[in-house]
Amino acid sequence: MEWIEYVGYVGVVLSSITFLPQVLHAWRTKSVGDLSIWMVLILIGNVTTWLFYSSVKGVLPMIIANAIILVLSFIMLFFKLTFKK
Amino acid sequence: MEWIEYVGYVGVVLSSITFLPQVLHAWRTKSVGDLSIWMVLILIGNVTTWLFYSSVKGVLPMIIANAIILVLSFIMLFFKLTFKK
Repeated sequence: MEWIEYVGYVGVVLSSITFLPQVLHAWRTKSVGDLSIWMVLILIGNVTTWLFYSSVKGVLPMIIANAIILVLSFIMLFFKLTFKK
Repeated sequence: MEWIEYVGYVGVVLSSITFLPQVLHAWRTKSVGDLSIWMVLILIGNVTTWLFYSSVKGVLPMIIANAIILVLSFIMLFFKLTFKK
């Protein structure tokens, strides 16, 4: 494996966990008023597209990362739709 | 160009604009209390990694998308550090 692919794996791990602190923050505060629902919706569209792309291409690390981000995005959407503030 | 690469271009465009509604939302409301600073910081790390990866690989659409996301991330960080609430 070329050295640059290790950089790619760092990117995959960081990408996967990017929205975890946001989900935890929203869960703790029960407040999502400052979150843009359009960000969450475009994120879902963006990640669904990459999940499809990586599945067709058979790039497993990218499939896993996008699947994780998709789950986190749907949790953010659920919070956005259910929390009162 | 294979058809799946067109799907990739859709992903690149969606990825690039994902954080634009969040930046506009924060700018309009001047309120970022519900935004996790850790999300923003990990996003900056994640995008910097992909910017480096795509520059070494010479994948121009990925370079452009990550450069746009990096600018938007730094704007969110700036808002997070300067807005009072």
